[in-house]
Amino acid sequence: MSVTVNVRIGAVGRWQPDSRGRLQEAAFALFAERGFDQTTAAEIAARAGLTERTFFRHFADKREVLFGASSILEERILAGVSGAPADDGPLDAVACGLEAAAAMLGEFRRDLSRQRYAVIAANPELRERELAKLADYAAAVTKALHQRGVGEPQASLAAEAGMTVLRVAMDRWSSGQDERDLADVMRDSLAGLRAVASGG
Amino acid sequence: MSVTVNVRIGAVGRWQPDSRGRLQEAAFALFAERGFDQTTAAEIAARAGLTERTFFRHFADKREVLFGASSILEERILAGVSGAPADDGPLDAVACGLEAAAAMLGEFRRDLSRQRYAVIAANPELRERELAKLADYAAAVTKALHQRGVGEPQASLAAEAGMTVLRVAMDRWSSGQDERDLADVMRDSLAGLRAVASGG
Repeated sequence: MSVTVNVRIGAVGRWQPDSRGRLQEAAFALFAERGFDQTTAAEIAARAGLTERTFFRHFADKREVLFGASSILEERILAGVSGAPADDGPLDAVACGLEAAAAMLGEFRRDLSRQRYAVIAANPELRERELAKLADYAAAVTKALHQRGVGEPQASLAAEAGMTVLRVAMDRWSSGQDERDLADVMRDSLAGLRAVASGG
Repeated sequence: MSVTVNVRIGAVGRWQPDSRGRLQEAAFALFAERGFDQTTAAEIAARAGLTERTFFRHFADKREVLFGASSILEERILAGVSGAPADDGPLDAVACGLEAAAAMLGEFRRDLSRQRYAVIAANPELRERELAKLADYAAAVTKALHQRGVGEPQASLAAEAGMTVLRVAMDRWSSGQDERDLADVMRDSLAGLRAVASGG
């Protein structure tokens, strides 16, 4: 999907993305122009042609524009891991979680995802928060693997390795280094990890 | 090394660890008792039987008691990777970095390392900082692998997987889940990652 919308003038009669999408788009643009710290919720709403009240109906604060999807993403990953065939090994089960993640994240526009990464990379506090989210996913996946009967350290290693694959794949996909669908990039990164681990 | 020293009374004539070590020991004890945020540099110095001035000769602030070794650790890891045999694959080169890390970190007292982990785990800000340090190591190792001619995504995957092994091994070693030397725990965790990656 790649629709150009002039959200600033809010032209009537043209197709418009939903409010949440418009707010995200406006926020990423402002974060890139001014920096995250120098942008307010009111400015994001104004840029999106919406009221501040509408902003706060969608997001608790401006940080949530960047991290609002993370609890749903964690749920999807865990559902993928738990739904994996019972005789799958730990990394195959994690791979099912990664497929679920790719299905969700691949729906976002690649250009917005790239902007999101750029904002996070430019701000140490946001970068630390992003890393903490990934560590939370890894901890949750580790528990899900324990429930499948996987012991330690196998569960931690498979879960952390899986989150490494997620991060590397998202990075390659968002940056346009790999132009294929996210699901393909994710599978390829997992195959790359397996090759690196067996190849020495 | 396991020497019991009553640093509070600073008994003359008994063997004492160096000032830096005494400050670390006092800091970890206070962080555990009161929490990191509720402890001041002056209190750490007093508990160690030293002056605040001595504290600031060793550490810029109380956070540095926890993270002061990280730049030396990064140097050691990079030296290990760069010094690996030229025909080593990416993960074998990373393994050389992990050996160097184990040689350095294994010299710390296990009980202090455990206290350090407990303090960090209890404080989200410190936890985010610890994760950021590990991500920094991974980024530096990725660059070192590029210099060895390793391409992408192999370099990122090997570097990140290596830092996963470091984290899992440190966790098992500090917590006493694995009572062997850190170098053995590290090698075992790397073998575990290889097995998980090839086994599915």
